[in-house]
Amino acid sequence: MPRFFTPEKPSDIIKVTGSDARHIGYSLRMKVGDCLTFCHGGTDYSCVIESMSGDEVICRVEKSSPTLAEPNISLTIYQAYPKQDKLELIIQKTAELGACRIVPFLSARCVARPDKKTYEKKQARFQKIAEEAAKQSGRGIVPEIAPLMDFAEALEDMKHCSLSLLCYENGGKRLKDVEFPQNGCIGVMIGSEGGFERSEAEAAEKAGAIPIWLGERILRCETCPIAVTAIIMNLTDNM
Amino acid sequence: MPRFFTPEKPSDIIKVTGSDARHIGYSLRMKVGDCLTFCHGGTDYSCVIESMSGDEVICRVEKSSPTLAEPNISLTIYQAYPKQDKLELIIQKTAELGACRIVPFLSARCVARPDKKTYEKKQARFQKIAEEAAKQSGRGIVPEIAPLMDFAEALEDMKHCSLSLLCYENGGKRLKDVEFPQNGCIGVMIGSEGGFERSEAEAAEKAGAIPIWLGERILRCETCPIAVTAIIMNLTDNM
Repeated sequence: MPRFFTPEKPSDIIKVTGSDARHIGYSLRMKVGDCLTFCHGGTDYSCVIESMSGDEVICRVEKSSPTLAEPNISLTIYQAYPKQDKLELIIQKTAELGACRIVPFLSARCVARPDKKTYEKKQARFQKIAEEAAKQSGRGIVPEIAPLMDFAEALEDMKHCSLSLLCYENGGKRLKDVEFPQNGCIGVMIGSEGGFERSEAEAAEKAGAIPIWLGERILRCETCPIAVTAIIMNLTDNM
Repeated sequence: MPRFFTPEKPSDIIKVTGSDARHIGYSLRMKVGDCLTFCHGGTDYSCVIESMSGDEVICRVEKSSPTLAEPNISLTIYQAYPKQDKLELIIQKTAELGACRIVPFLSARCVARPDKKTYEKKQARFQKIAEEAAKQSGRGIVPEIAPLMDFAEALEDMKHCSLSLLCYENGGKRLKDVEFPQNGCIGVMIGSEGGFERSEAEAAEKAGAIPIWLGERILRCETCPIAVTAIIMNLTDNM
């Protein structure tokens, strides 16, 4: 069944306009009486199309239930800004796999260093990629693409997590040996191409992050967040 | 230290020619006395450059040791041929994460269906991608890209594995509940965009494959092999 996200918590009636309405009417060629699902905040709202006119579709909510595909942990990926278009792949894949929020930040060894204005222009595109991935994989929320942060801001932000991890090539705990909180908020900080400076790793540890080590194989910076998201979803029974 | 693969088991002396020799001399600007590593069959050979002339580099083997980054399981990914250039991403990422062999095959729902001749032209390129990923991640072998198989051939090939798994969207065991063999040969069969026909899943099960289920989120066909490889490497203590 086609899935859409709605920005506000639905009441009995959902009024759809804009690109979603055109998608329903023109691309999917849906008709009055057809069923579709709207998602908001981890809840699926099963709806029936009540009327369609021009660029507006009116849907009636029939029932609601928690989105089955939504993991019971809230995983934030803090990703040091990578080169080229790697962040797009990272966003698409970690959103599919169940991440809730992606926070790009600038660390000492980032080669690509967009200023906040350049980033803001890209942010809308990144958010769109997250939304597409969420729709396609059946998520109940659209993962949030945060504003670009510096390292200190990202560390400060990560303090809200009940468990913070730092992927560190110089060693640390194995993911298998980490105790994951039930229904918790988990943050994972991942380096760009050059990894982290020792001083950054120390600052992260001081802020409460546990260094983790993914073994002897050197992963490309875009492979790491994808692998870590899959492994954490598996270890927390969400995959 | 720069790493290269050598097609034959080295004796005391390794003679390097062709693109590797040019890479050593011109790109890396290495000199007589410099150290580099050659890998063959999961063993690292630490070498010193003894002489260089034109397009030939002569290296002396100083010592050998098992490649640390090589997992202790042998994982083969049987991947139903996907659309576009997704197979390239799958090869690069699963090779980095530790897969030993990638077997592309044609299943009923494959949309891209190259004939064997068209595939053979691509195979060399795929093999090159696997080699690059192996070098970059510090592997001790170059994962093998197999010839294109049909579904029956892939099933027959998978019988050599001590554990066979089939990723099946209609349900199965969770990866966490699978008992993985120590040092074993593991095969995982993964569908293309449309997944598997019921008859294919039944045939695979009859051939000994255990259906596994990756949960409620619907993964894109290129995300599945990457996630599965990471999770299996983690569950078998190889990551």
